[in-house]
Amino acid sequence: MKFLGQKAAQAVDVELMGKHGYAIEQLMELAGLSVAESIAREYPKGRVLLCIGPGNNGGDGLVAARHLHHFGYIPTLFYPKQPSKDLYKNLLHQCASHQIPVASDLEAEVSKCDLIVDALFGFSFSGAVRPPFDSVLRTLGQTAKPIVSVDIPSGWDVEQGDVSGSGLKPDMLVSLTAPKKCAEKFGGRFHYLGGRFVPPKMAKELGIPEYTDASQCMKLEHPPIQQRL
Amino acid sequence: MKFLGQKAAQAVDVELMGKHGYAIEQLMELAGLSVAESIAREYPKGRVLLCIGPGNNGGDGLVAARHLHHFGYIPTLFYPKQPSKDLYKNLLHQCASHQIPVASDLEAEVSKCDLIVDALFGFSFSGAVRPPFDSVLRTLGQTAKPIVSVDIPSGWDVEQGDVSGSGLKPDMLVSLTAPKKCAEKFGGRFHYLGGRFVPPKMAKELGIPEYTDASQCMKLEHPPIQQRL
Repeated sequence: MKFLGQKAAQAVDVELMGKHGYAIEQLMELAGLSVAESIAREYPKGRVLLCIGPGNNGGDGLVAARHLHHFGYIPTLFYPKQPSKDLYKNLLHQCASHQIPVASDLEAEVSKCDLIVDALFGFSFSGAVRPPFDSVLRTLGQTAKPIVSVDIPSGWDVEQGDVSGSGLKPDMLVSLTAPKKCAEKFGGRFHYLGGRFVPPKMAKELGIPEYTDASQCMKLEHPPIQQRL
Repeated sequence: MKFLGQKAAQAVDVELMGKHGYAIEQLMELAGLSVAESIAREYPKGRVLLCIGPGNNGGDGLVAARHLHHFGYIPTLFYPKQPSKDLYKNLLHQCASHQIPVASDLEAEVSKCDLIVDALFGFSFSGAVRPPFDSVLRTLGQTAKPIVSVDIPSGWDVEQGDVSGSGLKPDMLVSLTAPKKCAEKFGGRFHYLGGRFVPPKMAKELGIPEYTDASQCMKLEHPPIQQRL
């Protein structure tokens, strides 16, 4: 299995929506669903705080929140920077239809929840973390509550890992489509792969292992296979 | 659980995409996925012929074909009337990316396959079946191969059942969102419910039973609960 660099990850996304004709709504639905299914495999039902970023990683988180509700969890959103794009507005609207609240006091929510989903930044992230996300990451870096990161632990460099010292140490990482290079540095308990929409030729090129059931996620060997070769 | 009439089913769809802000691509993705998951619960891996109609029921079938491929089945499409709408063109394109062939000889494909998916007409259907679908339905009405109908057995009246004598006797029915009235006349072995995207207030109004796991489908009691009350 290949661990993708930032450019390769971006190229995969472009190919899925261009050459293969996927709508972003489809990819996000299946990605977010795979995050929710991964969580349902490992954590008991309870209160889940989803920290939502301003881009597609946040969109995946909004989808995951809705599916977690359907799976019997009690999700709450923390969504400090809500973009005006219809895609995100609609996903947030669907959460509202599912009576999923949006919280404003992060510290209070962290103390109340059983699990945190980090859907702040994905593989497009680079550079420094700007406010208000710097303080969000500080809070997530200090809590003892288990954190599930969507695709990338937020604040980590997509390829190098936690070089800026964000301190985020997720308990679970759900890699989407294929793991990114920073996943080699992941030291948590559960590494899952989701995003089961990769056409066969592309899956072969990326070395994606075969899913063996009819679910949307697969547990990867831990520590990652590549580290042990 | 309510068994919906045609107008009620149409109103549910309007509410999901209007009031609750869902994109058709999301609903279709989850509906088609629930069909594929239902099949994976009951039938061994093998050749699946998906008969695709010109509307949204056909779209659900195109999505199901792709997920069936991912689940290890060998899907083939029969798609005699391909609409020019981007939604369907893109779904077909995704099937092509998954190397799912489109067949032209229905009789030959029926004889080769292990299972048939009827994704011809859904809850919008009314009136007479026009060519080429009249001959497609005759073929499906005569085969001994098991048939899985998506939401409605095609040719059946949405409320009254097989009043026109289509002769279609599906082995499995996957009701989407909520069963339609004709499902009371379903006499096959497996009745599933899919389309796990109904917000809680609406689900309560429709009397949708609680899903108990993290999958996209649920097996309904058979014969349908309502018949036994």
